[in-house]
Amino acid sequence: MDALNKLSATEAAARIAAGTLKSEALVAACLERIGQREKDVQAWAFIDSDLALAQARARDKEPRRTRLHGIPVGVKDVFDTADLPTEYGSPIYRGNRTTCDAACVAQVRELGGVILGKTVTTEFATRYPGKTRNPHNLKHTPGGSSQGSAAAVADWMVPLAFGTQTTSSVIRPAAYCGVVGYKPSFGLVNRAGLKTLSDSFDHVGTLTRTVPDAALIVEELSGGSVTPFDAVSRMKPRIGFCRTHYWSKADQPIRDALEQAVPRLERAGARVRAVDLDGEFARLVEVQISISTYEMFRALAYERTRFPELISETLMGRLLGGGGVTRTEYEEAQAIAQRCRARLADIHRDYDALLSPSAMGEAPEGLESTGEPTFGASWTVLHCPAVSVPVFQGPRGLPIGAQVTGAQGKDGPTLLCAEWVHRALG
Amino acid sequence: MDALNKLSATEAAARIAAGTLKSEALVAACLERIGQREKDVQAWAFIDSDLALAQARARDKEPRRTRLHGIPVGVKDVFDTADLPTEYGSPIYRGNRTTCDAACVAQVRELGGVILGKTVTTEFATRYPGKTRNPHNLKHTPGGSSQGSAAAVADWMVPLAFGTQTTSSVIRPAAYCGVVGYKPSFGLVNRAGLKTLSDSFDHVGTLTRTVPDAALIVEELSGGSVTPFDAVSRMKPRIGFCRTHYWSKADQPIRDALEQAVPRLERAGARVRAVDLDGEFARLVEVQISISTYEMFRALAYERTRFPELISETLMGRLLGGGGVTRTEYEEAQAIAQRCRARLADIHRDYDALLSPSAMGEAPEGLESTGEPTFGASWTVLHCPAVSVPVFQGPRGLPIGAQVTGAQGKDGPTLLCAEWVHRALG
Repeated sequence: MDALNKLSATEAAARIAAGTLKSEALVAACLERIGQREKDVQAWAFIDSDLALAQARARDKEPRRTRLHGIPVGVKDVFDTADLPTEYGSPIYRGNRTTCDAACVAQVRELGGVILGKTVTTEFATRYPGKTRNPHNLKHTPGGSSQGSAAAVADWMVPLAFGTQTTSSVIRPAAYCGVVGYKPSFGLVNRAGLKTLSDSFDHVGTLTRTVPDAALIVEELSGGSVTPFDAVSRMKPRIGFCRTHYWSKADQPIRDALEQAVPRLERAGARVRAVDLDGEFARLVEVQISISTYEMFRALAYERTRFPELISETLMGRLLGGGGVTRTEYEEAQAIAQRCRARLADIHRDYDALLSPSAMGEAPEGLESTGEPTFGASWTVLHCPAVSVPVFQGPRGLPIGAQVTGAQGKDGPTLLCAEWVHRALG
Repeated sequence: MDALNKLSATEAAARIAAGTLKSEALVAACLERIGQREKDVQAWAFIDSDLALAQARARDKEPRRTRLHGIPVGVKDVFDTADLPTEYGSPIYRGNRTTCDAACVAQVRELGGVILGKTVTTEFATRYPGKTRNPHNLKHTPGGSSQGSAAAVADWMVPLAFGTQTTSSVIRPAAYCGVVGYKPSFGLVNRAGLKTLSDSFDHVGTLTRTVPDAALIVEELSGGSVTPFDAVSRMKPRIGFCRTHYWSKADQPIRDALEQAVPRLERAGARVRAVDLDGEFARLVEVQISISTYEMFRALAYERTRFPELISETLMGRLLGGGGVTRTEYEEAQAIAQRCRARLADIHRDYDALLSPSAMGEAPEGLESTGEPTFGASWTVLHCPAVSVPVFQGPRGLPIGAQVTGAQGKDGPTLLCAEWVHRALG
């Protein structure tokens, strides 16, 4: 029998439904794994084993509420939790306690899930790293900002964890850690109780080991219909191979891996064509910076004005840059974003999904940087669903992801394509 | 010399700039007015006179930062404040203290403004009323949900106050209390630190006694250019008279007042044509309910599941209604909203502003209801700027507002039209 901590959420949910698995055993297995590995991986900001086990035992005594019943979930420490500290990765909030749970946390509890603990975030989900290491090689970054969630899921500590993405903070750590990162369509998961960075771009996302697990939790939270993964084996998706404007910046192994994937996808039944996102699409990385920094300057006004000495130099530089973005520049950037969203909708008449890199390369060595977010930014601006699937390995033996994106609002079909790609290349 | 508490923010700012007014004197005058009237009006949830005066004295010792320097501002008690309680109008949060200030609160402080206190809100900015009374007749509701802000501004207690609008929570209390209510274009004022109800519709707005005051604070917060109110006297605006789908529900005096205003506007130089918002526009009130309740069910999941006994029956009914909205219904409602926004943009090629009722009638008698939000809902869904100007009086001697709305993102031109209408009819 597999170690219980290695079960996917979908597998665990099936066993719980069948009465062959207790939440307490599942949670205990996760806690045991954490006990063995946390000293090295450092994925968790706060964990209270007794609290987690108490939740599990309470669920075990009840009728099953939903597919999340009894399933442990990690929560990035940018979501408020009433029963665990919430520090947002910042010394300003050392020991901070919030009065209530964020919406997605309260929903997980309502749906029967178990909040296992808070996972490490970079400073306010921006660039300045937290303590987490890449479980595949502890000398390498796990990426950011959802670094604790990605590392914990990759290291078999928890099957599901919440992340957030404002640039590439779900997709990049998923790629670096070799797990599935899912940034749903903008707004699909409720954001109440998330520490706001950029109202226009903050997305709640998930880190999981399988695509169906990502679908499971987001469907339960949003009331969406169940994605029919049984259909994947019969699919012949129309895939746009999207090198993007930043192709030349990607490491050679990434480019090689994706180029070589194309004939494999075709052999597996896909129709693959190159899609060139030209014109204003090439400006979306700068658009993302203008809009997000304008908004962050304001969203973090309290911290910026009261505790400047407790903000990292890198973040303060970005905030002050945002203070220099004029309202006119901000509105022009929003207009570009809007036009590109309309163009993307047109493109998706011909394509079920687009395939692009998840990141520049393997996870960089060193913990002082979380890597470059370039390949996530455009899809964040476009508000479309994006899924990083772990399908390649780089020359240093670290995972490389492929990013599958879809039409805004078409999360089910996009997840099906991501699963199809995962199977075809995995 | 006028009582200082009766100065508009624009007048006070000019005097502070000229060195003829100290913030301390201005704040003291506001506090004195509150001392005289609060027993009757009950506009304030929390006020700390010493704290307000200390802020004013600190600003008086410094060079002037912006037009907000030394100006007192009231803050609806749905925004977090680090130095005053934040109860969101709910017994669940009795005595609640938040760690940080909401973005707009921290920004006001950074820009030199003085946070005078927290104003009363209905329960989580929804329907269940707070304690505030209409200063024009204490037996009547001031409207909701921004009831404390509207009443405080109307009763000369403070020149500027923040409100929020998810349906009609700025426009309606402004109309009932005879002040200017301004709901800016969606997202113009940063929402970080606002208790989230409906991510798709929550707007930060303002209550003021003049249109230029509304422009002043929002321009300072957003970095927008200064609206040239000098140009108003030369304007010949193209106004669409928009009875809306709900015209027959408005009280006769409202309809009469607006119908009779048309020739006056034309004599003042406007071109006025009837605009019929037909088809899907007629569904926007139901669209607003579907989307906002779907989102509220999730945003208030913690309160709904942990403290159901401390939630009013009226709110719990709406939340549970929201739990019954399917994801498909939600997405259909969002699609209607999107199509209507595009149609409104088309309509505004021919019209600088649309004129419609702000509310069904005068403020209803009694404090158990805050009145009907119908006339605000569509403009909230449309994300466009909306301004209620106090230009009529009803048969019971209470104020009636006219609502001036503009194209999404065109806040300056819309505020100019609102000021033009205010002068033409006021």
